[in-house]
Amino acid sequence: MTPNDRPESIKSPVLDNSVRSTLQAHLATVTDHLNDGIVPFWFDRALDSKYGGFLTNFDEHGKPLPTPEKYVNTQCRMIWWFSTLKRRFPQTPRAAEMASQGVDFLIKHFWDPKYGGFYWKVKQDGSELDNAKIVYGESFCIYALSEYYRATGDARGLEYASRTFDLLQKYASDTQHGGYYENINQDWSPEAGGFAGGDRKGLDTHMHLMESFTTLYAASQDDLHRRKLLQVIGLICEKMTDKATGCGLNQFDLAFNSLPAISIKRTWNGERLGEQPADPIDTTSYGHNVELEYLMHLALKTARADVAPFQPTFRRLLDHAVQHGVDWEYGGIYRDGLRATGEPIVLEKEFWQNSECLVAFLDGYELFHEPRYLDAFGKIWQFVQDHMIIKGVGEWRTLLDRHGKPIDPNIGNPWKVAYHTGRAMAESHERLTRLLA
Amino acid sequence: MTPNDRPESIKSPVLDNSVRSTLQAHLATVTDHLNDGIVPFWFDRALDSKYGGFLTNFDEHGKPLPTPEKYVNTQCRMIWWFSTLKRRFPQTPRAAEMASQGVDFLIKHFWDPKYGGFYWKVKQDGSELDNAKIVYGESFCIYALSEYYRATGDARGLEYASRTFDLLQKYASDTQHGGYYENINQDWSPEAGGFAGGDRKGLDTHMHLMESFTTLYAASQDDLHRRKLLQVIGLICEKMTDKATGCGLNQFDLAFNSLPAISIKRTWNGERLGEQPADPIDTTSYGHNVELEYLMHLALKTARADVAPFQPTFRRLLDHAVQHGVDWEYGGIYRDGLRATGEPIVLEKEFWQNSECLVAFLDGYELFHEPRYLDAFGKIWQFVQDHMIIKGVGEWRTLLDRHGKPIDPNIGNPWKVAYHTGRAMAESHERLTRLLA
Repeated sequence: MTPNDRPESIKSPVLDNSVRSTLQAHLATVTDHLNDGIVPFWFDRALDSKYGGFLTNFDEHGKPLPTPEKYVNTQCRMIWWFSTLKRRFPQTPRAAEMASQGVDFLIKHFWDPKYGGFYWKVKQDGSELDNAKIVYGESFCIYALSEYYRATGDARGLEYASRTFDLLQKYASDTQHGGYYENINQDWSPEAGGFAGGDRKGLDTHMHLMESFTTLYAASQDDLHRRKLLQVIGLICEKMTDKATGCGLNQFDLAFNSLPAISIKRTWNGERLGEQPADPIDTTSYGHNVELEYLMHLALKTARADVAPFQPTFRRLLDHAVQHGVDWEYGGIYRDGLRATGEPIVLEKEFWQNSECLVAFLDGYELFHEPRYLDAFGKIWQFVQDHMIIKGVGEWRTLLDRHGKPIDPNIGNPWKVAYHTGRAMAESHERLTRLLA
Repeated sequence: MTPNDRPESIKSPVLDNSVRSTLQAHLATVTDHLNDGIVPFWFDRALDSKYGGFLTNFDEHGKPLPTPEKYVNTQCRMIWWFSTLKRRFPQTPRAAEMASQGVDFLIKHFWDPKYGGFYWKVKQDGSELDNAKIVYGESFCIYALSEYYRATGDARGLEYASRTFDLLQKYASDTQHGGYYENINQDWSPEAGGFAGGDRKGLDTHMHLMESFTTLYAASQDDLHRRKLLQVIGLICEKMTDKATGCGLNQFDLAFNSLPAISIKRTWNGERLGEQPADPIDTTSYGHNVELEYLMHLALKTARADVAPFQPTFRRLLDHAVQHGVDWEYGGIYRDGLRATGEPIVLEKEFWQNSECLVAFLDGYELFHEPRYLDAFGKIWQFVQDHMIIKGVGEWRTLLDRHGKPIDPNIGNPWKVAYHTGRAMAESHERLTRLLA
């Protein structure tokens, strides 16, 4: 596969032969995993041939499990995946068709003809299930539909992405404190407080808004999208990161006072665990921190903004994860640590943090030419290949213990699909290719 | 005249005979000035019979001066005036027609068919002059068109008010810091910084947004309008008032750090004085402070929000003006004072501060039953009758010295018209009637 869309060039480090051969080896394994793993896995299984849209749930053998509910974020992650495949590797057959039928299903069953915006989830056949407007989900609609437009030129992509963006500005933006309300009813009134999350804001949603506004601006070149992107970057830097450690903070009240995290209804944890007392321990996610690094870097480059003032922030995020989060002994990245000291406290290895670290450490290596970042990439990628990727099946397990033993063996669930793993491979492929150019 | 639209009743103070006769005397003089002054003055002169819309500039004899430029804010103030006359005193002949032809002119010549929103100013015949989108002006469009809809039921009023509101949410809201950008180009990109004001926010614009969102919500009963109204109230209380004195602050950077005020291009001062160094003296406007009091009180009542938590703020604003701003010797209200001490430093008497104080002190009297507020109303109203109202002409002079001698004798200018003076009379009439009920 050959990338056809290279972002603005970064001055490559001068590579000695040993580094060059390391990078070449990584590129080879990443390319193989794309060609023989992630790409065919989802081409062979994702299409819901009965109802349209995508199946999301698979066991460790890649056999479909029931997909009784379709979440907007996961349907969009699959639209994004097939779209980005088409954009990055235009010779891939059927990618545009897969994305396009996902867009058909999305617009037909998730779009709210009365109030606008996309519902949170529907039943497998597209019938009504939860009509709430969850900004995390709306953001993935913008992300997917913008990437779909970039890949295919289908005007529906930019049209619905822009309409969703406009609805967020009108209904979800908080004109008192800045940022966006996150948990919203079908009619765009705020959800109740507490477990329903109507009185909370979080880094996660705002980081994903940064991600989707980046792709929207790349698609539209509309300066309004750029301005709102820069505003959310400013907000994250100013209000949603910890001045002492540089790490991301998790949850806030509407005025951005940092709060102990609670479980929120329409999140992966909230749906599994239900309402829980606030977490008394102030944790940080190494993987989320470095995801923030490279998404913000991409956002700034896409907005043609000066990256230099943000470099110290990027370094702090990367160094914190390198120092505390990378398991230099067994490989991979720990799930969570204490924010104040960095000490890891949950030593499990989860698919998405490992995915995001791969991209972020290559991003850091391209930006700072820091050998430790390349070493960290190698330590994580080796662990992923040894333990997370299921041989002969081609996707990643969800959750392993520190040593690589499966805790949750399944591959796809309503929140997983190909977004983290596929993006990690596509982005690593692009970055390794660029480094070797 | 008889008001037909009484806001939710406030418990009236028990009036002794002396207070009752004072109120009756005030109601008589206010009613006379409406019937014999303000109302006929503008009915007889405001219509631009050649081009449509309104003439705004008159000398001290009420003779028209040239009106080469039509400002969106002043055209809207006249639409508002005739609309509110129709709503409050439905038997008034021709008020709806006057407002309606103003709306015709506004939509035909100020509405931007390309980018949406209303231009800042046009030539007398409606041709292009300054296509900028100034949020202060957009706010007056919302205010006027909403009141017009309430008065007449003409669907254009609510339609264009809502569209303008939506455009502000999309383009002018600051999703990093909250609040709204104020000085904006035709295409809704922010204006340059400095004199053009693109990097500043101010209490004035945000207070007028509170005013216009109040009327919009009264017209639409759309809960989104209520939520955005409550957000701007919260913002003003939290970021735009001085914690030490309770007074309003004037100008801010985009992050709401208080700044020494500069002259801004498209303001009354900016247009007359041009670019100036920042004012080193931290002044406060007694009239603006009490205008904030009653507009916020009305906003909260209209939103059916609890007024009680705001009562201490209202008292501080009113008491500051009573203590430092009312000229208990000669009557009227001083123009400006030092914020820190309250000491008056500009002893002139300007029409709009005196207008706003009349409403605010009656508002305070209704709310707190505080005799000093009624005394302050009396002191100001007497000064206005003795010196500001031009006998036999029916409108107010613009600017007097402390003792009542004219400095600027003219009646209407591109920023004045009937909004402050007419509203002061209409609101005083309504409040005095309610107090005597």
